[in-house]
Amino acid sequence: MSVAVLDQLRAALGTKIDTSPAALDAARADRSGHASPAPPLAVVHAESVPDVQATLRIAHATRTPVIVRGAGTGLAGAANAGPGEIVLSTLRLRRVLEVRPDDLLAVVEPGILNAELDAVLAEHGLWWPPDPASRDISTVGGNIATGAGGLLCAKYGVVRDAVLAVDLVLADGSLLHLGHRSVKGVTGLDLTSLVIGSEGLLGVIVGATLKLRRTVPGTPSTVVATFPHVTDAARGSAAVTASGAQPAIMELMDRHCLAAVHRLLELDPPAEGIAQLTIQTDGPTAAAEAQQIAAVLREAGGEVTVTADPVEGAELLRIRRSMHAAMAALGTTLIEDVAVPRSALPAMFDEIARIERSYGITIPTVAHAGDGNLHPNFIVDGPEIPPSVWQAADELFRAAIRLGGTLTGEHGIGVLKSRWLAEELGEDQWELQRRIVRAFDPEGILAPGRVFAPARPAELPEGADHA
Amino acid sequence: MSVAVLDQLRAALGTKIDTSPAALDAARADRSGHASPAPPLAVVHAESVPDVQATLRIAHATRTPVIVRGAGTGLAGAANAGPGEIVLSTLRLRRVLEVRPDDLLAVVEPGILNAELDAVLAEHGLWWPPDPASRDISTVGGNIATGAGGLLCAKYGVVRDAVLAVDLVLADGSLLHLGHRSVKGVTGLDLTSLVIGSEGLLGVIVGATLKLRRTVPGTPSTVVATFPHVTDAARGSAAVTASGAQPAIMELMDRHCLAAVHRLLELDPPAEGIAQLTIQTDGPTAAAEAQQIAAVLREAGGEVTVTADPVEGAELLRIRRSMHAAMAALGTTLIEDVAVPRSALPAMFDEIARIERSYGITIPTVAHAGDGNLHPNFIVDGPEIPPSVWQAADELFRAAIRLGGTLTGEHGIGVLKSRWLAEELGEDQWELQRRIVRAFDPEGILAPGRVFAPARPAELPEGADHA
Repeated sequence: MSVAVLDQLRAALGTKIDTSPAALDAARADRSGHASPAPPLAVVHAESVPDVQATLRIAHATRTPVIVRGAGTGLAGAANAGPGEIVLSTLRLRRVLEVRPDDLLAVVEPGILNAELDAVLAEHGLWWPPDPASRDISTVGGNIATGAGGLLCAKYGVVRDAVLAVDLVLADGSLLHLGHRSVKGVTGLDLTSLVIGSEGLLGVIVGATLKLRRTVPGTPSTVVATFPHVTDAARGSAAVTASGAQPAIMELMDRHCLAAVHRLLELDPPAEGIAQLTIQTDGPTAAAEAQQIAAVLREAGGEVTVTADPVEGAELLRIRRSMHAAMAALGTTLIEDVAVPRSALPAMFDEIARIERSYGITIPTVAHAGDGNLHPNFIVDGPEIPPSVWQAADELFRAAIRLGGTLTGEHGIGVLKSRWLAEELGEDQWELQRRIVRAFDPEGILAPGRVFAPARPAELPEGADHA
Repeated sequence: MSVAVLDQLRAALGTKIDTSPAALDAARADRSGHASPAPPLAVVHAESVPDVQATLRIAHATRTPVIVRGAGTGLAGAANAGPGEIVLSTLRLRRVLEVRPDDLLAVVEPGILNAELDAVLAEHGLWWPPDPASRDISTVGGNIATGAGGLLCAKYGVVRDAVLAVDLVLADGSLLHLGHRSVKGVTGLDLTSLVIGSEGLLGVIVGATLKLRRTVPGTPSTVVATFPHVTDAARGSAAVTASGAQPAIMELMDRHCLAAVHRLLELDPPAEGIAQLTIQTDGPTAAAEAQQIAAVLREAGGEVTVTADPVEGAELLRIRRSMHAAMAALGTTLIEDVAVPRSALPAMFDEIARIERSYGITIPTVAHAGDGNLHPNFIVDGPEIPPSVWQAADELFRAAIRLGGTLTGEHGIGVLKSRWLAEELGEDQWELQRRIVRAFDPEGILAPGRVFAPARPAELPEGADHA
């Protein structure tokens, strides 16, 4: 049957069908470190909406699974394709079709990189706020499919807040136009919002109308505060939020992260055990807000530096932005992504410390403290994540849910967290969500086994093949 | 069977079951002027979540339709109950369960009025941004079920942007907790967003976690500009948006509205034919922004007044806020609710003028010009909406959709616009949305015949019974 599918794809799409070993192998893995057990059937390099539709019609008729894939920068394994699966790549669909400064919107194809789009928009004095750490290498379509966040979310929102309309090709190849170009609109169910963060289960995003902002005027100010212990830093960030200040960026690094970055960048080592908050204010009152925040942090016991110099500010932020590289230098990394209400940040750090003690491991953690999203990192030696690390991650997820939060703030469920999904949603909601997926894709050809993999909450995940 | 249902309801809920003629009659109509042909079976005054669950279990077992109803201030007939239907009233579920200034959230029951909630939040220096014109008399649950908007939406967002979590009782009586208390979260499908604006079709909202803002500091400034023609005023508002200014409020009144309000308030009549923009800026730079906007409007040909005096500003805004009363004084009103991209406002006013000429009628129109949402009013003499008015409304809807907009910006589909739903969504999406509704409510007991009434796009609506 696989041969028949390939024949049909080649007949319909010619050289856009790629079965080179390099392409097939690249489609097995994303940035999570996880890889599928073996290569997929083919990669389709779609160049138009009809290409996407043709692919899905063939897949649908032959009941062949389809994995939609952008730049492959996901952190949950959602776009990792395996045996018998067709990879539908959106990377050649990368045009900006329209930029409308008067309506603060842009219409784009899904394969454009977030940073590429930003460069286009900057010429118009505009930007699209979602700014995942991967923005230089991740696609807008992928950002939408993941419901991506980033550093600026507390002030400027996440993807959910920044998409007006989506064009979606369903599993059977039909094309739907969801949403509209107006700011307001309540006609029928809000399927645009439902598609955001749906991780390739509902259809293929082939176009999006994005809600833009104007470039923020003025020069940002930067505040750096160090604290003797990470819980003090978390209390400091909670105090900033409670004070009514609204920083654009508020990042927290624990002692492990801070030390690792200093080593990587060949800076003097930080004082033993200290944690750091890096805060940026923007807009016309940036400097005054930075001083207000500095006062709150000094009151909270922080050692505080403030600068309105943009070069110095960028240098201070570079420490935070070097986190992923610093972690990678330590070993194989499993990046987690829990989120809690902002006031619960100190309690969540206490939970992380408890788990560290209980398992005799360190869990370097960075947090988007402005919105309560933490990225605890598990560092392992080899390609396999040992069961004890999954057990520790399990405790982490349960702690976040207990505190009113969620097991993933911005990375998604993919394959790596599907076992915990029913735990958070409850069995009734898990079943309901499955039924909704089936309303879009009755045959289940899109991303089968992802997100809604059969729930086995009692079990731990099998050892994943970590590359 | 009806008697058996009533017996079961009374056995389970005692005096919370109301079959008084006054209660049944009140549940037939909302503020749209539309009423159901005859009274419903009973009104259930739910006082707890278990009351809601008990009602739905009985309704589900007996296949009795249920209409969820808040304060009955809707403008699309969605909560108008008819023969054989159970009305589930949320008005006694009105507690504020939690206010958290540190996390900028509140947990509330659905029956609290928007303005009541605002008074509670104001004590904490907080507010919930959605501000429908009905805010003094409409419930938060109704605001969520409608996906309500209001005057402040361009700057501060709509309900979709201001809800973190919803507790939902499904048609079978089961209780789901959708969403979470953290700012970020992408676990599974975003059912919280799907419930917003779902008009009672998916379940009963029995609790909501709302995303709050801090009270905006400073004193607002107010700008009023008059223009010789409504299209000039629309161009003026588009120029304000295009200039990069972000007013909190930007309202447009055409000559009919302006004249009617001046009559109602016994003010001197406005100059013949003029249209008016009423704009408010807020925040620390309100006064400077108001001057910037005034300059744009003078450039666009407007006669402009600016005031930083809050009393004078409130007086100027009173003219806009008296619109509905002024329309009601003219006759029975069918309030429409189309939305278009902001740059298309002048074109939409041209379409309205064309329809006025074509049907020999006047269509007094007010617009939330900051977000492109227009409320054209059809004034009729008796309780019946004549077919020619529906025909004119039909042309209005099609024009809005053609311009990239939607047939309802914030009032919903209900019963009054269900015939146009498939027109906007397309048949494929209409069918998909029906399947999603069935995933929540397989037996179709919630709000049957509303929103997804069998589409008959070729036909005009039957004469509705307008009270």
